[in-house]
Amino acid sequence: MLYSMLSKNKIKLINSLSLKKNRDEEKLFVAEGVKIVSELIDSNFELVSIFAHEDFFNANNIDNVIEKITVNESELKSISNLKTPNQVLAIVKLPAQELKMNDITNQFSIAFEDIQDPGNLGTIIRTADWFGIKNIICSNNSVNVYNPKVVQATMGAISRVNVFYTELDTFLKQSLEFGLKIYGTLLNGESIYNHNLTDKGIVLFGNESKGISSELQKYISNKISIPSALFNKTESLNVSMAMGIVCSEFFRKNL
Amino acid sequence: MLYSMLSKNKIKLINSLSLKKNRDEEKLFVAEGVKIVSELIDSNFELVSIFAHEDFFNANNIDNVIEKITVNESELKSISNLKTPNQVLAIVKLPAQELKMNDITNQFSIAFEDIQDPGNLGTIIRTADWFGIKNIICSNNSVNVYNPKVVQATMGAISRVNVFYTELDTFLKQSLEFGLKIYGTLLNGESIYNHNLTDKGIVLFGNESKGISSELQKYISNKISIPSALFNKTESLNVSMAMGIVCSEFFRKNL
Repeated sequence: MLYSMLSKNKIKLINSLSLKKNRDEEKLFVAEGVKIVSELIDSNFELVSIFAHEDFFNANNIDNVIEKITVNESELKSISNLKTPNQVLAIVKLPAQELKMNDITNQFSIAFEDIQDPGNLGTIIRTADWFGIKNIICSNNSVNVYNPKVVQATMGAISRVNVFYTELDTFLKQSLEFGLKIYGTLLNGESIYNHNLTDKGIVLFGNESKGISSELQKYISNKISIPSALFNKTESLNVSMAMGIVCSEFFRKNL
Repeated sequence: MLYSMLSKNKIKLINSLSLKKNRDEEKLFVAEGVKIVSELIDSNFELVSIFAHEDFFNANNIDNVIEKITVNESELKSISNLKTPNQVLAIVKLPAQELKMNDITNQFSIAFEDIQDPGNLGTIIRTADWFGIKNIICSNNSVNVYNPKVVQATMGAISRVNVFYTELDTFLKQSLEFGLKIYGTLLNGESIYNHNLTDKGIVLFGNESKGISSELQKYISNKISIPSALFNKTESLNVSMAMGIVCSEFFRKNL
């Protein structure tokens, strides 16, 4: 275990990891804050470096990290993406994730077409974790899960929920072949309160402004919708809110 | 109706309205984007000035606005709070809102103690609108509803949902005296899936990090909770997500 100082190269590396191409090249991402870093330490993720106040190192018994660097408040500020840095920042190895249909067929998963907002994806991961959903499948054009804003918004749930990127077209086709139901939230769908929601299958959600494309709508076997008190159907729910309400309904029907 | 040019004083006024003390002094707030401004035009809100592309004025028949100012893209950018300005910005009069117990006692309302995040409050207003909730009551220490980030996050629902600020202590006490149930989400509450949720009453939600204070917990007549697949009770849902899931459950039980 090496105790090193915060070098200019480290600062440069950390800042560079806010971009996906650099994360992919270095195979690293950044996580911040006591809660998230503590949960990553206790997970299967591999932590490369931890930059923290001395208090954090004293309070936590950390053996599985290559490098521990003590930083003061102003040093932490120089590497943090947060307005109010919170004691600790970690550099973490990108996990090798491979989507296997066997992991999907025996449970309930959610899929997103071109989700764009980092806060939405973070909230979705946090909520998926709450309801015991293990796998989230995103189209390749979706916001990247290791974007620092997504990582922060998960509040640590990123250590327990898998997020895969793939061609949804192929994935949904394959899921149907495996006998899974594909649920999709559409305006003309049946109320989730009445619809039979099973404990296996995929629920597909669309892009924040465009919804589910017609290319992917054709794979939907079960059209569902969230009832509203509004008559004006130009209104909509935020995609993460829709996900939470739909998943709560799946959860309650399979308790 | 006057057509005027965008003056330096106007730019200064608009920028100043991002602060609550200036909004209170001028009795004005700012709203942006085609959807939100269009819904405000169709509402009871009083619009003072509209700054927009010529296209917007051509497409919309606007009679009830004191001042219409045509702006080009770079002028709009100079007054916009958005990364990508969207055709139109309006200066709107702060409505005179008075909380009357008679408006509360015959329906279902939600209350928030010290909610801080503008995005959360905006999402809550949008979701309340979806489920037909007319009144939201916030503690005086909550984020202000006319904060530009809240206004934007409501996606126009601000034109249909009333948000009041008051001492929750007094308000909740009074609600109990009026025979209303006070529901509160607590870790040891009964599952919302099993609990009898009536179509009248108040659901109280706590601050993002601290939850409901012990001072206000004493007014809760019905302790409820959202079931989770997690055993680790240090995890939580985002407050707007909790609100959406709880309100969906109230809605389904009273359809």
